Amino acid sequence: MQRLALIIFSFMILNSNTAGQTSNHFILLNWEVGYSVEDDQSEKTWIAASVPGAIQLDIARAENYGPYIYAENWKDYTWMEDQSFTYRTSFKRPDIYGDDRLLFISKGIDYEFEISFNGTKLLYQEGMFTPVSLDLTNFLQDNNELLIKIFPIPKMHEEPADRTQAAQSVKPAVSYLWDWHPRLVPVGIWDDTYLEIAPQTQVTDSWVNYTLNEALTSAEINIEIAGTELCDHQITWSLKDAEGKILVNETVNVTADELILKSELQDPTLWWPHDHGDPYLYTSSIQVADTNRNIIQTVNQTIGFRKVRLVMNEGAWDAPTGFPKSRSVAPIQLEINGREIFSKGTNWVNPEIFPGIITRYQYEELIDRAVEANFNLLRVWGGGIVNKEAFYELCDEKGIMVWTEFPLACNNYEGTPEYLAVLRQESESIIKRIRKHPSNAIWSGGNELFNSWSRMTDQSLALRLLNAQCFELDPKTPYINTSPIYGIGHGHYVFRDMDTGEEVYSSMQRAKSTAYTEFGIPSPSSVEILKTIIPEDELWPPKSGGSWESHHAFNAWVGDTWLMQGMIEDYFGKSKDLDELVMNGQLIQCEGYKAIYEEARRQKPYCSMALNWCYNEPWPTAANNSIVSYPNIPKPAFYAVQNSCRPVLASAKITKLKWREGDSLALDIWLLNDSYEEVKGGKILVKLVTDTEEMELLGWEYNSPEPNTNIEGPTARIKVPKLEGDRFKIVLEVEDYPEYNSEYLLLYEPKRKRRKKTALLNQ
Amino acid sequence: MQRLALIIFSFMILNSNTAGQTSNHFILLNWEVGYSVEDDQSEKTWIAASVPGAIQLDIARAENYGPYIYAENWKDYTWMEDQSFTYRTSFKRPDIYGDDRLLFISKGIDYEFEISFNGTKLLYQEGMFTPVSLDLTNFLQDNNELLIKIFPIPKMHEEPADRTQAAQSVKPAVSYLWDWHPRLVPVGIWDDTYLEIAPQTQVTDSWVNYTLNEALTSAEINIEIAGTELCDHQITWSLKDAEGKILVNETVNVTADELILKSELQDPTLWWPHDHGDPYLYTSSIQVADTNRNIIQTVNQTIGFRKVRLVMNEGAWDAPTGFPKSRSVAPIQLEINGREIFSKGTNWVNPEIFPGIITRYQYEELIDRAVEANFNLLRVWGGGIVNKEAFYELCDEKGIMVWTEFPLACNNYEGTPEYLAVLRQESESIIKRIRKHPSNAIWSGGNELFNSWSRMTDQSLALRLLNAQCFELDPKTPYINTSPIYGIGHGHYVFRDMDTGEEVYSSMQRAKSTAYTEFGIPSPSSVEILKTIIPEDELWPPKSGGSWESHHAFNAWVGDTWLMQGMIEDYFGKSKDLDELVMNGQLIQCEGYKAIYEEARRQKPYCSMALNWCYNEPWPTAANNSIVSYPNIPKPAFYAVQNSCRPVLASAKITKLKWREGDSLALDIWLLNDSYEEVKGGKILVKLVTDTEEMELLGWEYNSPEPNTNIEGPTARIKVPKLEGDRFKIVLEVEDYPEYNSEYLLLYEPKRKRRKKTALLNQ
Repeated sequence: MQRLALIIFSFMILNSNTAGQTSNHFILLNWEVGYSVEDDQSEKTWIAASVPGAIQLDIARAENYGPYIYAENWKDYTWMEDQSFTYRTSFKRPDIYGDDRLLFISKGIDYEFEISFNGTKLLYQEGMFTPVSLDLTNFLQDNNELLIKIFPIPKMHEEPADRTQAAQSVKPAVSYLWDWHPRLVPVGIWDDTYLEIAPQTQVTDSWVNYTLNEALTSAEINIEIAGTELCDHQITWSLKDAEGKILVNETVNVTADELILKSELQDPTLWWPHDHGDPYLYTSSIQVADTNRNIIQTVNQTIGFRKVRLVMNEGAWDAPTGFPKSRSVAPIQLEINGREIFSKGTNWVNPEIFPGIITRYQYEELIDRAVEANFNLLRVWGGGIVNKEAFYELCDEKGIMVWTEFPLACNNYEGTPEYLAVLRQESESIIKRIRKHPSNAIWSGGNELFNSWSRMTDQSLALRLLNAQCFELDPKTPYINTSPIYGIGHGHYVFRDMDTGEEVYSSMQRAKSTAYTEFGIPSPSSVEILKTIIPEDELWPPKSGGSWESHHAFNAWVGDTWLMQGMIEDYFGKSKDLDELVMNGQLIQCEGYKAIYEEARRQKPYCSMALNWCYNEPWPTAANNSIVSYPNIPKPAFYAVQNSCRPVLASAKITKLKWREGDSLALDIWLLNDSYEEVKGGKILVKLVTDTEEMELLGWEYNSPEPNTNIEGPTARIKVPKLEGDRFKIVLEVEDYPEYNSEYLLLYEPKRKRRKKTALLNQ
Repeated sequence: MQRLALIIFSFMILNSNTAGQTSNHFILLNWEVGYSVEDDQSEKTWIAASVPGAIQLDIARAENYGPYIYAENWKDYTWMEDQSFTYRTSFKRPDIYGDDRLLFISKGIDYEFEISFNGTKLLYQEGMFTPVSLDLTNFLQDNNELLIKIFPIPKMHEEPADRTQAAQSVKPAVSYLWDWHPRLVPVGIWDDTYLEIAPQTQVTDSWVNYTLNEALTSAEINIEIAGTELCDHQITWSLKDAEGKILVNETVNVTADELILKSELQDPTLWWPHDHGDPYLYTSSIQVADTNRNIIQTVNQTIGFRKVRLVMNEGAWDAPTGFPKSRSVAPIQLEINGREIFSKGTNWVNPEIFPGIITRYQYEELIDRAVEANFNLLRVWGGGIVNKEAFYELCDEKGIMVWTEFPLACNNYEGTPEYLAVLRQESESIIKRIRKHPSNAIWSGGNELFNSWSRMTDQSLALRLLNAQCFELDPKTPYINTSPIYGIGHGHYVFRDMDTGEEVYSSMQRAKSTAYTEFGIPSPSSVEILKTIIPEDELWPPKSGGSWESHHAFNAWVGDTWLMQGMIEDYFGKSKDLDELVMNGQLIQCEGYKAIYEEARRQKPYCSMALNWCYNEPWPTAANNSIVSYPNIPKPAFYAVQNSCRPVLASAKITKLKWREGDSLALDIWLLNDSYEEVKGGKILVKLVTDTEEMELLGWEYNSPEPNTNIEGPTARIKVPKLEGDRFKIVLEVEDYPEYNSEYLLLYEPKRKRRKKTALLNQ
């Protein structure tokens, strides 16, 4: 915002009253979409369109396609990639009084488009994240037609037909094909779109930009307002607390179209992530009144007061040592309101292939489930969309921190002038929208850009632009170029490395990262889900090349991902049926995720973050690293992760999955504690348990831990005895605090019979 | 520059003629400076001031201080730190015709100041790098007085009185005390300052901003011009080649005060660093003419056409391997005009404590010597000043690449709004000036900011600002946040580690860095220099606490730096006099630097850069890592480095300095080749040579190397025989190419007498 005018009025907390309301009128439209299966020159077929939605879904409905989630139906949609489409809507001249204007508003049109009204071309735009606001008033007729031409999806080249096609656009790359996403690229109007009758005098943009003092006891508030024809009007700014009490209510006479009002709030109640306090929200209200004191516009916004920083991870300044000496790692320890917080969370992907059909309700259910999982941070991965407003509103309310990535992922987004111009426009729109949300804790340029498969670097102009944009528009929120940055670890994505055979227990215990911002263990989806996506005749046994592969069970990433039947059966023996395969695969996912989350927590305070890959999925997969199946069905691993993310728990450091009779089993016992509340001392009993036996290995009395501090306990040891069955559990029971209990499943095999020595001698 | 107007005219190479000239008049002023030893309220003593210069030097001259380079005289200046001073000058009304204006121009005033003219305060400014241009016309009287109040030097706090005091200013930190710089903080007018009579119509800023095409066969040129009262005038832009031939000469009528002219140059002769081609320069000329075609202003600028990038170091994308996986290192391979160049160079520090007295001549002598050293890159270290124009003009001409750091070093420059505002202003001034120079190859935020002694991080707002500023104002020049970034190594700074005893031979051979941008081996200065700075009665033996320590021989960095008499005598035995100590210390410096430069070159192509710490020094030191003593006197190490930086040379990988009779000496033999020219195959003879003997160890016939590619040869081996004397040389003789010869000095000791076995048995 350029500060053309500066109106200053300072006031302290007052008590007065006003009612928020708006006088604008909204008109929803009926849309059609025109398409031709042949080519762009052919006559178009016009069908009803759902707005917001996706053209693919409209056509599928009209043409009676089978559901895209089923079998290999997604392949039916391929032809639409290179077509252009046209939305159209007609309406009669609405009643417009005085100086009011008729605006066409769209919060998002995907991806390249041109808007004409009554034959006049009003806008060409590339970019789905920049909202459209067009004044139609001067072009109005009695009968009106609005056309939106949607260009074919952006492709940097024809071949290879994969994510690299998205490397010169700000279109999310995921829909070009990912290891858990089919090749199915949506286009169309994807966010709220309507006509609005609005007074000529309008606040068009506003931001309650506050700065907390060092002690967090006072907020300096700049209410930055931009609008049209504001002069000679009055603006009233008020601030209400969560109970609706009005704390500030002041009015100024406006003399310019851009202004900054100044205020101050003493002792603000701070916004906290849900596991550290209340996500307290105030409501700001900007009211515009005309000379007759009639309120002509009200702009409400919730505000959470919080200070967010990325500070150096504890101990990280101690490295490197010796000479020649490079730099220290990059900080990734989140600090909220002066408190260092261990971030437990997950990687969020589009909850739908078609972002136009994501609803507030769907966001809410998924965010509620994230809270249920004891997560406090969602990394919104850069391969997908930047989420809609509802997502951020809900995260604000529910106390979930968000790491927002710009739509760059796993490509080298070369900084051509054309690309940078679109990225500048899109990033400005994204930042100005999301900076208002206290939940947004980290900006990131995108996913895995500094690795060999992407080949962007610190020199990449796209990332330098994003850093500059975030610095200029939202300097109080941390920005990182990508994930991983120096010090952060990504992976592993399988329970057992395909080449080395190393299990995640070991690879995690070897690692020393400041944060683990991606790690995944795949599992098959439940049999119920599999039956909805895989035709019965393909269901058993799973094989590559058909619906299983279309749903990512084979050839998805590397090796036999994501089903990994071979590895599962290597641990458990050949599966007799689908149920057994799924059960065993899900069991491995549970144990793998527990091992990683808990090891990451043991590495605190140097380590500050653990986010699994991934949380959810945009369609039902046959096998995936997700812990919540589409649309929102928890896998068993969800509950395993939920347990490992409890603020306080007893934890055992497991070193491998399968144990043989006679092996020396050593278990470091920990009390993991991320809480700043008082945690009482107690006693942990460590047991080895089978269906028929229970052996106590250790009893450990621990003292009350320091806030946010783990306690490293003793090591329980046992030579694995002869056991019944093929598995056993390590159970940690915490006296009086069963909510801290943990258990781990391990596999067992009896001692192998020795080859007879005589046989050896005979060789 | 905001593009208020865009005038486009495209033209190709033409041949016409015009003479560059300017009609502006310059008036030099006589200055006095007023000071009070007591306090700011006392009556000031007025003395003659040298402008540009430094107030400290004016006072020293007036008060007959001893030379600041001698003994501990620098301590006399301490009182000036907290004083304010006033410059004054008087002049009669000059003849001014028509609409002409009288401007006060200063290219640099250090550091915080206020300018008044005839009693009217015209400017307050913090920052020495932003030039001043004040229109005095409306305040002119018959007799005029211009006053510049210089505020006390910026100090963030009173204690500790060290570089941390500079951490909230854009004042170079070095003068607050460094391990090779005394505490002596200059203030005053430090760059060209004068009155100028100029027409109202003026080009005030211009930039010939070109873009080379991929093939480097064509330059699109935008001549970006900003000025005052340009409307209704004509601007002629012409481009001449180095021979003075006019290639373009076109005239436009101007309709706005900001404009961009567009042109194109086919087949530009490219600018190259001196060791890879000609540093070819064109001359751009902008001429402003009034309606009568009278030329009223000419702005000339040299232009070098070159494309500079930092690309990934060869092989660097192969790491990291395994999971969890962090990012790959940051690129630091310089590529000029599509050619990867191994950067050999050095760290440049202020050539004077008082930047106001640095002359063009002094710059030229030092830059010529850098060329002589086979250097192609100077890192202008961020602890010191950003150099004056003459420095960059000379580097342009002589084909030396420059790495320019902003004035941040070894501090945590906290991003307070006040600091960021000054940094924004200063960085804009710096970038807009230096971006015009083809020699400027890298922008860097500052020195060692991402290490524990500085504690800045990727999150530091100051660095995010600098990245943003460089991106917006000069995106075609690479920017790095600091040195070292991830992958680069700094250090070691001594020949042998004080704790581990490891020599640089070994630490460098262990290392694997993308670049070595600081490494130092100290040596004493020559006896002649020592005699000019250390009083005779202190000269021998050196001791701490007096002039030796003031000149950095003791307690300068860590341990007994920089003299390190103990280490020297550990290798060579007790020095009988100063001459011997100096000779032996300088010998170690020679061998150490050779080892490092040549090992860095052996690590090519992964390694791309070797810059020693440091090149020069701002005053005569008693001992320092520099290879050129103040003001420009080469140490023996200068010639050693010059040899190690030859484009092509035979090189032996030495593993330690001191050898004992019977040791197994193994020498990997290399042909180091940074040249893109054809290098013929040949034969290298490896010899062990003493004053009395010569043994041939190996003959190696090598083939013609690929461009810019080393050849790893065989290993010469010998059990060190019984030798005469206490040293020997390894000599590499290249048949027919004596210019490739190399030699290395090693120390020798005869076999120790064995303790008698009987003695052992008796224990």
